[in-house]
Amino acid sequence: MAELDKLLSVIENPTRRRILEALVREPHYPLQLSKELGISQQAVMKHLKVLEAYGLVRSYREESDLGGPMRKKFYPALNFTIVVDVSPNLFSAELISRRDNVLPEYGRGAERDDDFEENVKALRQKSASIDAQLEELRHQREKLIREKESIMDEANRLMTCMEDYQLRRIMYEFISHPEMELSDIARALSIRDEVVIHALKEWLRSKG
Amino acid sequence: MAELDKLLSVIENPTRRRILEALVREPHYPLQLSKELGISQQAVMKHLKVLEAYGLVRSYREESDLGGPMRKKFYPALNFTIVVDVSPNLFSAELISRRDNVLPEYGRGAERDDDFEENVKALRQKSASIDAQLEELRHQREKLIREKESIMDEANRLMTCMEDYQLRRIMYEFISHPEMELSDIARALSIRDEVVIHALKEWLRSKG
Repeated sequence: MAELDKLLSVIENPTRRRILEALVREPHYPLQLSKELGISQQAVMKHLKVLEAYGLVRSYREESDLGGPMRKKFYPALNFTIVVDVSPNLFSAELISRRDNVLPEYGRGAERDDDFEENVKALRQKSASIDAQLEELRHQREKLIREKESIMDEANRLMTCMEDYQLRRIMYEFISHPEMELSDIARALSIRDEVVIHALKEWLRSKG
Repeated sequence: MAELDKLLSVIENPTRRRILEALVREPHYPLQLSKELGISQQAVMKHLKVLEAYGLVRSYREESDLGGPMRKKFYPALNFTIVVDVSPNLFSAELISRRDNVLPEYGRGAERDDDFEENVKALRQKSASIDAQLEELRHQREKLIREKESIMDEANRLMTCMEDYQLRRIMYEFISHPEMELSDIARALSIRDEVVIHALKEWLRSKG
C-alpha cells in the first residue's frame, strides 16, 4: 500500500504525466522537455527530481550535438499499472508492478533499413490488434464491475438489520473479499481474530 | 483530461481513499469516520469538503440515535475507474466514467429476513465468481500490455534513424494509436494537419 501511495502521489501531477508521456517516446534532456511542454526548465528539473526520487525515471549522460558540455538525458524506468475503482458500493485501488522489465538500450544512430515502411506498417497493425483486444477486455471488466457493484449494493441492504457497526464491517469484508480467511479479515480491520470469530458466531446464534 | 486530473488529485490522498473505503460500506457521519480512521474530526471535515467539492461524496441529514441534533451523513456519489499504465515505452492514463449509476437508498432499519444466512452465502459465492473472472481479465490484460510495450520498444528502435524530433513524435503516435487519423495526430500534438502530412510524405519520399 505504501508503494501505491507513493506512485499515486507522483503521477497525480499532470505535468509529471506529460513528462512521462514524452519520455516513453524517447529520452529527453531538460531543455527539450521545457520546450516541448512550454514550461520553465526550473519547473522541469523540479518534476524530474521527484520522478527520479521515486524511481520512475533515470538519467544518463550524452555528448551534446553541438559539441557543448555533456548533457543529462532522462528515460522512464518503472513498469506498473494502477487501477482504481470507485463506486457507491465498491472501492479498490490496486498496484500491479512489473519488475522483470528490461530497459531499452539507448543511443541514437541506427541505419534506416530497407524494410522500414513495411516494419512500420506491421507494427501499426499489431498495435491495432492489441488495442482492439484491450478494448474488449475493458468492456468485459466494466460488466463485471457493475455486477460486483450490484452484489455489494445488495449486501449493504442486507446488512442494515445488523445493529453492531463492527459486525457490519466484518460482514462487508466477508462478502466483498470471499478469498479472505477470517484471520485475514481480522488483520485487514486491525482487530483480533477471536473478536471476529466471536462476533460472527454470536450474531448467527442470536438470530439463526 | 481535466476530469481525470481532478479525480487523480482527489484520490491520490491516502486518507481520502480510506474515507471512501469506509463510505462504500455505509454512510458515515464525521465523528464516526474520525474514530474509525483515528484522525481528528477537523481533518475528516477537511477531506470531506474536498471529496464533496469534486462530487465524490454527498450528504444527507439524519436524526441522531441519542435524540441529539440532526447530523450529516456522507455517502459516495461517483462511479468511475481510473487505469494508469506506465512502462519504459508506454504511458496511458484513462478515466472510465459510469454515469448511469443509481445511488442506493439509505435509511437504517430493515428487518432481518429468515434467509439471511442463505443470502449472505449466495452473495459471497457470486462475489467469489466475479473476483475470479476479474483476476483472469487482469492476467489477459497484463499479457497484452507486455506485448504492446514490446511493440513500442521496437517502434522506438526503428525510429532512431529519423533525424527530426517532430517527425519522431508523429511516427510514435502513428504506431501507438493506429485508430487515429492523421488529423487526430495533428490535434493531439497541437500542430497543423498540413505539417503532419507534409512531414510524413517528405520523409517517405526522401528515403523510399
